Parts: sequence; C-alpha cells; structure tokens
Amino acid sequence: MAFMLLPRRLACSFWHSHLLLVSGARHISQAAAKVDVEFDYDGPLMKTEVPGPRSLELMKQLNMIQNAEAVHFFCNYEESRGNYLVDADGNRMLDLYSQIASIPIGYSHPALAKLVQQPQNVSAFINRPALGILPPENFVNKLRESLLSVAPKGMSQLVTMACGSCSNENAFKTIFMWYRSKERGQRGFSKEELESCMINQAPGCPDYSILSFMGAFHGRTLGCLATTHSKAIHKIDIPSFDWPIAPFPQLKYPLEEFEKDNQQEEARCLEEVEDLIVKYRKKKKTVAGITVEPIQSEGGDNHASDDFFRKLRDIARKHGCAFLVDEVQTGGGCTGKFWAHEHWGLDDPADLMSFSKKMMVGGFFHKEEFRPNAPYRIFNTWLGDPSKNLLLAEVINIIKREDLMNNAAHAGKVLLTGLLDLQYLHPRILKHPVNMDLSTTPLRGDDNGDTEVIVEVMRAVARYPQFMSRVRGRGTFCSFDAPDDSIRNKLILIARNKGVVLGGCGDKSIRFRPTLVFRAHHAQLFLNIFNDILADFK
Amino acid sequence: MAFMLLPRRLACSFWHSHLLLVSGARHISQAAAKVDVEFDYDGPLMKTEVPGPRSLELMKQLNMIQNAEAVHFFCNYEESRGNYLVDADGNRMLDLYSQIASIPIGYSHPALAKLVQQPQNVSAFINRPALGILPPENFVNKLRESLLSVAPKGMSQLVTMACGSCSNENAFKTIFMWYRSKERGQRGFSKEELESCMINQAPGCPDYSILSFMGAFHGRTLGCLATTHSKAIHKIDIPSFDWPIAPFPQLKYPLEEFEKDNQQEEARCLEEVEDLIVKYRKKKKTVAGITVEPIQSEGGDNHASDDFFRKLRDIARKHGCAFLVDEVQTGGGCTGKFWAHEHWGLDDPADLMSFSKKMMVGGFFHKEEFRPNAPYRIFNTWLGDPSKNLLLAEVINIIKREDLMNNAAHAGKVLLTGLLDLQYLHPRILKHPVNMDLSTTPLRGDDNGDTEVIVEVMRAVARYPQFMSRVRGRGTFCSFDAPDDSIRNKLILIARNKGVVLGGCGDKSIRFRPTLVFRAHHAQLFLNIFNDILADFK
Repeated sequence: MAFMLLPRRLACSFWHSHLLLVSGARHISQAAAKVDVEFDYDGPLMKTEVPGPRSLELMKQLNMIQNAEAVHFFCNYEESRGNYLVDADGNRMLDLYSQIASIPIGYSHPALAKLVQQPQNVSAFINRPALGILPPENFVNKLRESLLSVAPKGMSQLVTMACGSCSNENAFKTIFMWYRSKERGQRGFSKEELESCMINQAPGCPDYSILSFMGAFHGRTLGCLATTHSKAIHKIDIPSFDWPIAPFPQLKYPLEEFEKDNQQEEARCLEEVEDLIVKYRKKKKTVAGITVEPIQSEGGDNHASDDFFRKLRDIARKHGCAFLVDEVQTGGGCTGKFWAHEHWGLDDPADLMSFSKKMMVGGFFHKEEFRPNAPYRIFNTWLGDPSKNLLLAEVINIIKREDLMNNAAHAGKVLLTGLLDLQYLHPRILKHPVNMDLSTTPLRGDDNGDTEVIVEVMRAVARYPQFMSRVRGRGTFCSFDAPDDSIRNKLILIARNKGVVLGGCGDKSIRFRPTLVFRAHHAQLFLNIFNDILADFK
Repeated sequence: MAFMLLPRRLACSFWHSHLLLVSGARHISQAAAKVDVEFDYDGPLMKTEVPGPRSLELMKQLNMIQNAEAVHFFCNYEESRGNYLVDADGNRMLDLYSQIASIPIGYSHPALAKLVQQPQNVSAFINRPALGILPPENFVNKLRESLLSVAPKGMSQLVTMACGSCSNENAFKTIFMWYRSKERGQRGFSKEELESCMINQAPGCPDYSILSFMGAFHGRTLGCLATTHSKAIHKIDIPSFDWPIAPFPQLKYPLEEFEKDNQQEEARCLEEVEDLIVKYRKKKKTVAGITVEPIQSEGGDNHASDDFFRKLRDIARKHGCAFLVDEVQTGGGCTGKFWAHEHWGLDDPADLMSFSKKMMVGGFFHKEEFRPNAPYRIFNTWLGDPSKNLLLAEVINIIKREDLMNNAAHAGKVLLTGLLDLQYLHPRILKHPVNMDLSTTPLRGDDNGDTEVIVEVMRAVARYPQFMSRVRGRGTFCSFDAPDDSIRNKLILIARNKGVVLGGCGDKSIRFRPTLVFRAHHAQLFLNIFNDILADFK
C-alpha cells in the first residue's frame, strides 16, 4: 500500500494537519501545558476592528510628534500574556510576530515580573553603569549565567551593546582592527596612521570593506546600512560605502525536493563571492570580512543549505577574511538550536557572531584572535545594560528548564507541516492522484505509519496555490510567499481582525516569529484560523 | 577702596573659596539639604587602595572574556547613594564623573526605586515593545511627561533611540533625507534612485557629507565616527567617509579676559567652515548638515562663545545645510539650562538636537520640516525603551520639583570659583599685588561686597600654576588642564584613593561631570580634598 511511504514519525503531525483542514473536523485546542496556564490566554478575543477607536486616537496623537504611519495599533502590555498581545481597545490576539521577533518567552512572564520586584534587583534598573569602566560586582557572574552559558562554539570572547545595529557596527570595527593588525604585524601604529585617521584618511582609516549579500539586513546605521540590501526605503538618500555585494542564492522550496537546482544556484553565488573578493582587493578595497544571516529575514526569509554556509566559511578562511554570522533575528532558540548557525556543523567555527532582539541586549561573541589589542577601541558609554542581562539570565534559565528549544523544534514542525498542507506542493506529488471519497475514508493516523495516501488526499482537498507558495522554515522560523505584496498585506490585515498578528518580510512573504512559549496547540489554532481565512479570501 | 571692585553677588562664593584655601580654616560640610539626606552619604570612606583586591580579582575574570583594561574598578551599585559611588571593596567615593556624565539624579534615588517596585510599572520592564509598530498605550503620555516637557525651542518632533550613537546616526540620516528631498522637489523617488541605492551607488545613495569639527566626539559607529575627531584610538583602522572637518576654536580662558583674541580665533574657524562648504560642494560631496557640540567634551572640554554658535547657525542657514546640535553629554541640566545650546539665545532655533546619557534613553528632536515623508525610513526594532521613558518622567519631575537646574548653576559656580582659585589666574590679576598679613586680616565676606583684596590674597596664597591651567566651565560642567597626560592621570589616581572619582578628557584635561544632586557642599568637600592633593603633589 502507498500508506507505507510516509515515515512514521510524521504521521502524527499530518494527522493533526489533516484534522485542521477537513471541513467540519475542526481542531479543538488542547489544554495548555501547566507551565503556561498561569500566564497564557486560551485564545483570541476580538472586540473591535484593529486598529480600534482608542488606537486610532493615539495614532493621531503620536503622529503629531513623529511619522507614525508604521504603527499597527497601540498595546496594553499589562494585559498581554504569553503568546497573546492585547491592544488598547481590549482585543486579544495570538502574536506570531512577537515585536519583530524580539520577545523570548512571551508577554508578562511571571518569573520576570517577580525578578523586577525583588528588592535586591532594583538597583540594576535604576543605576545604569558605564560598563566598560565601572561594571557592577555581579557583572561577570550574570554574563556567565546568561550569554556565556550559550556562547557559540569556538567563541570565548563577548562584548555587549545596546542594540543590533551597534552590535554589527562594532563587529565590523573588530574585523577591521583584526585585519589591519595582521597586515601591520609586530609594529605599532605609525605616526602617519595616527595622524591620518584623525582626518578620516588612509592609512589611518584604511579603505577596507565588508562583503554582504543582496537581500541581507544587518541594521540601519551607516556602517550596517552599507551591508543591508533588503528594501530601497531602508537605504534611499543615505550615503554609503562602495563595498562588495554578492548574490544570495534564490532557492526553490522545499529545499530537499530541488537539491540539484539549488546546488547549482549556490555554487553560482559562491563563485561570485570569490570573484568579488579578488575584484575588490584589486581595486584596493580589500574585503576584511564577510557578513551573512543564517536565514535572510527582513529580506524575505531566504534560506540556503548548510553546505552553502560551510563552503562560504571555507572561502572566508581561504582569502583571509573574517566570517561574521549575524544572528540578531535567528538567534535565541527559535530554529530549534540556540543559534541557527549551529545547524551547519562547521568544523572551523565562525569568527564572530552578533545577536540582539530575543537576547534582550545586543552584542557579539568572537574568537580570541579578534580581541582588540588596547582598551577603548571597542567602547561606548553604556555597552549594553546590566538590567537586561539580569532578565536574560532568567530567560535562559527558563528556556533550559522548560526545554523550550525542543518545544520550538516540535511546535515548528507542526506549523511548517500545516503550512505545507495549506499550499499546493510540488507537482511530483500529483503523480499519485487520489480519488478517494473523503466522507467514507477513515481519516486517522494509524500505528503502521501508513498515512501517505491520506496526506495526498488532504493536499488534493485543501490547498491554496493561488495564495501560498514556497513554504519554508526551520523550527518556528517559518514563512511562505503570497502572490504579491497587496495580497500579502491583505492577508495580514484579515488575520489581525481574526485575532492573529502576523508580520511580512521581503516583497511578498509572511514570516512567523512566535516566542519560545509558542506550543503545538498554538500552531494548530493559527492553522485553523488561517485555513478559514484562505477559504473565504476574495 | 579696592574692595569695591568685586560684584556683590560673587562675594559669598569667594568667601567660601577663601575658607577652603587658607590653611587651618578647613571647610566643614554643611548638613545636606533635607531632600538628600535620605539617600546621600556624608563623605567618602576609604578602606583599601582602588582598585582593591575584590575589584582586581573581578577584573582578572572579566579580562578572560573581553579586553578589560579600561575598567577602573567594580562597583557595588546597591550600596551607592546620591553622589557617592561604592566599589566592590567597600570604598565610598564622591563621584564627579557619574558614569561618563550619564547619571541624572544620583545613585539609588528612592523615587526611582519606588517606581520600579510599583506593580503597575512592572510590565514596562519585562515587555519591551517594537515602539515603531506597537507602542504601549501610555507612550505618548509618557513622552509628554518626559522628553516633550523639555523639548528645545522650535523642535516639535521627537524620535527615541537606544543610545547616543544611534541618535546621531539617525539624525544624520534625517538630514540626508531632508536635503535630498529639497533637491528632488515635488517628484517621487526615481527608478534609478530606487535601484542604485540597493547597491550603495548614487544617485540612490548620494555622496552627501556632514561637516564636523576637529576635536568633536559624536559617537563610534561608522557614520558617527566620520564626524568624531577626538582621539586616534577611537578611529584608527576603521574605514571612513571623506567628509569636511573644520577647526574648532582653540580659545584662551577665562573667555571674558581674552575676548579679542578669542573672537579672532572664532572668526578664523567660521571662515574655514564656509570655505569647506564651498570646497566640498565643488567636489560633489555636498555638505547636507553641520554637527557640533555646545562644549566639545571627550575632545577636551573645548568651549566657544555663544556668538560663535549663533554665527555658525547663520552659516548653516545661508548655505542650506541642516544645523544639528549634539547634546548627548551637555544635555539634561548640568550647564544650568536644560540644554546647553539654550545659552546661545538663537533667533532661529537649531534644526535637530540629539541627546542620550542623562536622558536615560537616546533620541533626537527636530523641526517639522525634517519629518520623514514615509514610514520605516527612520526605524529599528526597539526605537528606544519605554522603561527608560518611565524612569525619565520621574527624573524630570524631580529636576523641576527640586529646582536642580538652578542647583547646577549654583553648585557649578562654587566649583568653578574654587577651581579658579586653585589655579594661577591671568597675569593681569597680578597688577594688584597684595601684601597683607593673612593672620591679621579679617577674612570674611562683608555686606559691602568689598572682597576683591581678599580674593587677591587668596590667589597669592594658594595657587598651583604648575598643575592647573585653563579652568573653564558652565554650571557644573567644569574642567581644567593639567600640564600633561601623565600628571593628569596621576591626579585622577590620587584623587580616587582620597575618595573622589574624576574623569579625564582630551589630551590632558580633567572634566567634572557630577549628577544634578551635586550641591555646593559637595563642591566644597571636593575642593578641600583637591587642595590637599595639590599641596602634597610630588
């Protein structure tokens, strides 16, 4: 029987997906796991259109003092809990965007609320130090409990920063200093270097570059922006550096079905990377480093294979360039590993890795050879914020204690499988046409794992090729493409009014960025709602 | 009598200064004002050398994970109160540097401690929003209570940011967008602009520049760093932009005694500014804006006259350049006005003003004509931090309620007068030689305001021209020059071991950056200690 073709381990997921998609067999949310009950709601609750009247009034007020056109709605964070964001009009929405992927363990987590109110922690919130010169006594310990406990392989060194852009800016600076120091060898700074740098000139300010990828997003300050190529509105009118920009692989999804095409595309891009390094060295704009996201996020959730990244790392080493992985959006456990680049299985670790968002504070890890040779070279007044380290230590504690990375892997699989079921898959699937009568076919996962025909049925029954394509994801870090930005934006608006907050990325993608307390039942709840939206979409 | 020459309003200050400096007539601290008693200590208390053994051990630990050579010592912020910083070894020091000028109202202020512990505020600390899309319901109100209540003249628009560098980076971007929009006129973005900006090329990324001053410090990210010219170690090895750098006036102090020389020097610099604007326009690197600090801080506490800044503002207007005032270090009340540039009395307000540090959060104000014409142009994930707005609202409330700006003016006058007394003033003063017998002269301020002879006596008695020159200041924002960096650094170290934390700036200056709860009696306490240090200095 064709039932044999489906791996058993997927049977359950498909069974759930199936339930979602067959009309009349709606999924009923499981009771939330005990640990969530305290602070999660049991579903969306909508009272008004979103934005409602209160949000609209506040938007008008905010717009008096700044361009507030990007505001979606105003929020009542006091009432927001777990996966649910409550707005200023009392609407409660399942939040799959979580403040542009920056909320680690849901809203109003009771452990964090407790931490803030403990008298011994108050000082951290009201006495913000200049960390580079006068750190608090518990600074090293708190770093050990928080960031150092999740240090990526090979990187023993850590600098904290206040945000993602500053993290990348300072990682770039660290790269430039490292590269110049290699060139300089044993000698110290020359008089000419010391003088020329003061007036922005070489040799003190060398004409180095950072190689980035088309579609990348590394931040919006001027250094970062020279490596950001996601949307024109981020970059237009801002002066930039002439730094090399390589094509990022434009892959077909699901990756495993288009392996050969994708390999060719990745090889093309890697070749271009090497060509650019040579070309820019010739034009005296030496590539000191390469920066890349494990999944291009703002640029449209563009994936590449683990093999691509391993080869890219090799190219960096071969040409003496630093290899910086930007995990600002991918880091923190949502891909099922703490850092997305851990999926690659690098033999030689990356040289630097930046983070922010779900880590609550920015910064970057790096190898010891990238350590600045003098104080005050990587420095600013605050260098992060110990009150965020304090919160992060508790967040990481909870991630470990509640096994939230495995939860992300599991909930992500449910989400991805459900999304795959909603989309019209690859034509190859259609080689197995199934003409079963759904009303008489027993629709259940069975112990033989023999569910492929059922899956095929589902794909034949419930698919929305007109709305969804290129479903892709790792952990809960999932996405799909809508046909165009207008339908994408419309889907986001409809979903919001049905009680689900989604985010867009790239030209026409919808990205999923739930928190780490997003469970399988939240995925199922979303899939139910979204199925209805697609079924009704006009 | 010569007594008549001294303005009466200064008599009291000089009288205090006198007490400080006459051996055997040591000042005894006044009882602190009631409002401080709750949370300020009554003096330094030293138990070990600084850094002590605990700090040294922690420095070793921190140095394992980052270059920790800039660390002065580790702190016990829980025990720090008001103007006193307590270190990890239990040493209590009068802090005149206040975390590089970033603590507004002293350590562990009870009002802030209370605020953090109030249940209704907990959410702000644990639910950090993406402010640009999902602001909290109370966002506009908190901005009104905090930043908007101190908005500088003419600037109705406000954007918050996480730190000073991001504030300036985004202020620069706002300037570039404004300038390009003027050039573009009514038309929208062209196809060529939209495409070329994605690859860092003109016309999408125009070759605009920001004019800055030698000695300036505007931050350390790549855009900011192109306008920073304070120390080589900040800039060396980092690529930069070819942007124009004008000389900043090198004035003689006290300003009022060298008016003519200083005017000539300022005229020379202003002429150079205009020349550079013309020169850079010719070489197609149009100056879109000028950025300047009211007092160059990191660069050595370099002042210029109010007239200089008024003329600079006029030049900016004349050439169509934006005028950005960087108040990251000078803002927040320490000069006796909330923003230092309010001293200038500009008819036409500045176009933009950036802030951070004592404001607890970064950002910039700007005129309405600088408003971006579309959403997401000035944007990042966090755009500041509402938990800091919450604290700042209370800080500003306290500044107003306790009249802390006038306190800064008053305490600053005591400090400056005392510093002037410690230094050997201008030779002109010596035209009034005084040979009084101090032991028999009645040394008191009198109701006639006739104290000049006494002042002259003090200057003859207690002066340290070998250690101090160029005393200068506005409010508590004071400084002086040591003969060289070695003596400067030695003075800072000695002071620290006597229980006073000082900071350096420029090549050989010592800068004073106390908090706003620094009172006249703290100034007197410092002057006593410092007088002893200078008297014993070898």
